[in-house]
Amino acid sequence: MEKENKENKTALSAEIRALRDKLLGQQQLLRAKGLPVIVLVEGWSAAGKGSLINELISGIDPRFYNVVSPQIVPEAQARYPFLHPYACAIPENGKIMFFDAGWMEDVVRKRLRRDITGEQYKTRVRSVNEFERQLRDGGYLLLKIFLDIDRKEQHERMRALRENYETEWRVTEDDLWQHREYKAFREAYDEFMEKTGETIPWIRLDGSKRKAAVRDALRLITDSIDRGVEQGRYVGEPFKEKFPLIPMPKLADVDLSPALEDEEYRRELKKLQKRLKQLHNVIYRKRIPVILCYEGWDAAGKGGNIRRIARPLDPRGFDVIPIASPLPHELARQFLWRFWTRLPRSGHVCIFDRTWYGRVMVERLEGYCAEADWKRAYNEINEFERQLTDDWGAVVLKFWIHIDQDTQLARFTDRQNTPEKQWKLTEEDWRNREKWPLYEAAVDEMLEKTSTENAPWYIIESNDKKYARIKTLRIVVEALERACEEHITRGL
Amino acid sequence: MEKENKENKTALSAEIRALRDKLLGQQQLLRAKGLPVIVLVEGWSAAGKGSLINELISGIDPRFYNVVSPQIVPEAQARYPFLHPYACAIPENGKIMFFDAGWMEDVVRKRLRRDITGEQYKTRVRSVNEFERQLRDGGYLLLKIFLDIDRKEQHERMRALRENYETEWRVTEDDLWQHREYKAFREAYDEFMEKTGETIPWIRLDGSKRKAAVRDALRLITDSIDRGVEQGRYVGEPFKEKFPLIPMPKLADVDLSPALEDEEYRRELKKLQKRLKQLHNVIYRKRIPVILCYEGWDAAGKGGNIRRIARPLDPRGFDVIPIASPLPHELARQFLWRFWTRLPRSGHVCIFDRTWYGRVMVERLEGYCAEADWKRAYNEINEFERQLTDDWGAVVLKFWIHIDQDTQLARFTDRQNTPEKQWKLTEEDWRNREKWPLYEAAVDEMLEKTSTENAPWYIIESNDKKYARIKTLRIVVEALERACEEHITRGL
Repeated sequence: MEKENKENKTALSAEIRALRDKLLGQQQLLRAKGLPVIVLVEGWSAAGKGSLINELISGIDPRFYNVVSPQIVPEAQARYPFLHPYACAIPENGKIMFFDAGWMEDVVRKRLRRDITGEQYKTRVRSVNEFERQLRDGGYLLLKIFLDIDRKEQHERMRALRENYETEWRVTEDDLWQHREYKAFREAYDEFMEKTGETIPWIRLDGSKRKAAVRDALRLITDSIDRGVEQGRYVGEPFKEKFPLIPMPKLADVDLSPALEDEEYRRELKKLQKRLKQLHNVIYRKRIPVILCYEGWDAAGKGGNIRRIARPLDPRGFDVIPIASPLPHELARQFLWRFWTRLPRSGHVCIFDRTWYGRVMVERLEGYCAEADWKRAYNEINEFERQLTDDWGAVVLKFWIHIDQDTQLARFTDRQNTPEKQWKLTEEDWRNREKWPLYEAAVDEMLEKTSTENAPWYIIESNDKKYARIKTLRIVVEALERACEEHITRGL
Repeated sequence: MEKENKENKTALSAEIRALRDKLLGQQQLLRAKGLPVIVLVEGWSAAGKGSLINELISGIDPRFYNVVSPQIVPEAQARYPFLHPYACAIPENGKIMFFDAGWMEDVVRKRLRRDITGEQYKTRVRSVNEFERQLRDGGYLLLKIFLDIDRKEQHERMRALRENYETEWRVTEDDLWQHREYKAFREAYDEFMEKTGETIPWIRLDGSKRKAAVRDALRLITDSIDRGVEQGRYVGEPFKEKFPLIPMPKLADVDLSPALEDEEYRRELKKLQKRLKQLHNVIYRKRIPVILCYEGWDAAGKGGNIRRIARPLDPRGFDVIPIASPLPHELARQFLWRFWTRLPRSGHVCIFDRTWYGRVMVERLEGYCAEADWKRAYNEINEFERQLTDDWGAVVLKFWIHIDQDTQLARFTDRQNTPEKQWKLTEEDWRNREKWPLYEAAVDEMLEKTSTENAPWYIIESNDKKYARIKTLRIVVEALERACEEHITRGL
């Protein structure tokens, strides 16, 4: 009997060696195909998540993988949406990222700690499903492993760790608490996996059989890579949810005549900026995140509009983020990554000068992404923004700074003829102008599909810049007043 | 009398408006010239640093400046070198960065708090001088303002802030402590400014006269930009410090014959990896940062060598960082920025697969930087590494993986003829090979000038890869053993 066992072990070791070699070879295949892989390893404390990852990576090329062990930030200290550390850590094309526990542990532990309410839990489960689907649709190979051990095994392992001076620190208070609450955790893990297993299935591995678990994980990974390389990125019916949308007029139907007299402009500007300054203080203290998105025609007056908002704000609490074409390392990741990594801390105001909507405008019209990519993006963006507002409590307002073609031509000409303004005008601006009808149709579609109740679009009539600035300021002030009141009511 | 005062104020306001307009125009000049500007605003609590910055930026284009208010991390929680937050926040070419307090407050406050010793204080002052000089030499315009108020004024202002519900939170315990210890702070500020004012002078502004301070700061900034644009980047005698250097042999004199038998290799590998695994635990718990730098000839065996180091390490505590050509946003900043932003947290091991030494090898030989740049870099790198070891307690080890030309040719040929290895060989490798003598001279100079006692180079004879791996492992193990012992002695 003993001999057979030993033979089994030898066979298992040989299998593991062969699979490791295969994975080492596949790393080059991943690079060549630009396929990114995420391996999420969740499971019980002391189930051996770290050791399993260690076994998986030993023998592969450390230049082309990474391991992250995200810390779970206590809810009271969280300054970013809960998905933020995970969304910021996704690998670039061609690389493998191992998560030593991740969003599952985050959500489940906080739920059992009553750090989040039942309602929040539901919202987070939804966000997790959205996040995982977006990764898959964005070309990622996502593998989710749950390392399972029973209560007795966990007890044994924790005892062994705590008896050894070198390892006792590895058993934390949280781990001991989990062991005491084993039953509640079992239920919570099961429930979470049931609710998040539909799009990307969970793979349960028996953590008590270490070698077999390594072999099974390696098999899963290498088989999945084989399949992923062969089939290419996921193509299926794009997922579409019915978001509560605010009806928007067509751009062509917008009356651009509203204007303001100088005197009224100055009066209103002063009043609104003063109010905004006060509100910024409250926002800061209540830690409400505020995200203002600016899009609009070239020469519509975005810059001047932004400056009128920025002026009364405390510079320590706001940022203007100009968005240009994506850099190579940004193109090598899911398209929202470069926005996830630029989110402000809660309590700060962040003004995006152009945004993720580039996906459904310039990237769509210039062919910088595939048709399926921008078609899917409306829904992905709605989800992303809902994660900001619902998971995190952010205020998200979006402004389309609108002018007509004649006004644009007048401003272009003025820029051309004024030496100090010439830098503002590029050849590209003229080229974009020629595509006005195409852009107009794309903008109409964008406004129609993404003006959600939680993150509405506002068309800002900007033939008269003064009118546009006052209108924007007023919308911001009113939205912040509402947000501050709501947070008071909630007792935060 | 009163009337004259009012006239003065009106004149001052007009001056400020004119200077603001000038600064707005200069922003485009800065962009065109690619000149980055850093404005450090230090000074007393309640002296009005935030308001001053607010006045400076009001009216300029928020797309081309940023404001940071770095938090001072308590020494006990610090996981990075103290300059890290500042070095990571430097602006890219063409932009202005305002620091709302920075490295001065960090060093002075910690000294007065006795968070750092007198010895550490001296080291930090030196590092600050190095950091500022490197910025200037790297083409940055650095302006340092100290906003001064006397004790009575500070008292008045803090009282006013605390009496108002909306502002009372702005006066922190630290501020109150500073007010009680006003005299000690005064002396410490003066001393710090004296010790850091030689290369980049400090400008003191009277914080009690708010409007005049705004005018003076704007004048300082606009005049400096005028001069900076006119004169171009600083060119002077490159600064050179005599670092304690370890004599290095010329590459040509290195005996490449050492080799290991399979059996000894396997025995030693097992022993050393086991020991390294143990040490990694200690390193982690003592929070010692470890940085291993790999450079070497193409096909010298860097990758395999790195894998033998990485294998026994806990994946949650180490990272391999492959360094490729700098990306556009990296080229737009001081050359060490992309390494500052990749430093590991203390307690982690970070393996750089190629390093900042690219500056004095490929960038030098391919003409990617000016002659003055790479000539200055030896000293800059020695300073940078000393900041890692002396300010932060890092272990920094540098390996030159060495082979001769025949061995390289044999390995190139093998790669060419083995399908699984072909990806490792590029046209560039062949081109670099032709420049062997040039590279050899550059490497000799690099080894000679940068093998400091605190961050030594090790030439690793790698004609026999097994010998090379064992030698590297042994050096790492011995260095970590020393570091662990030292940290015990210091009682950390």
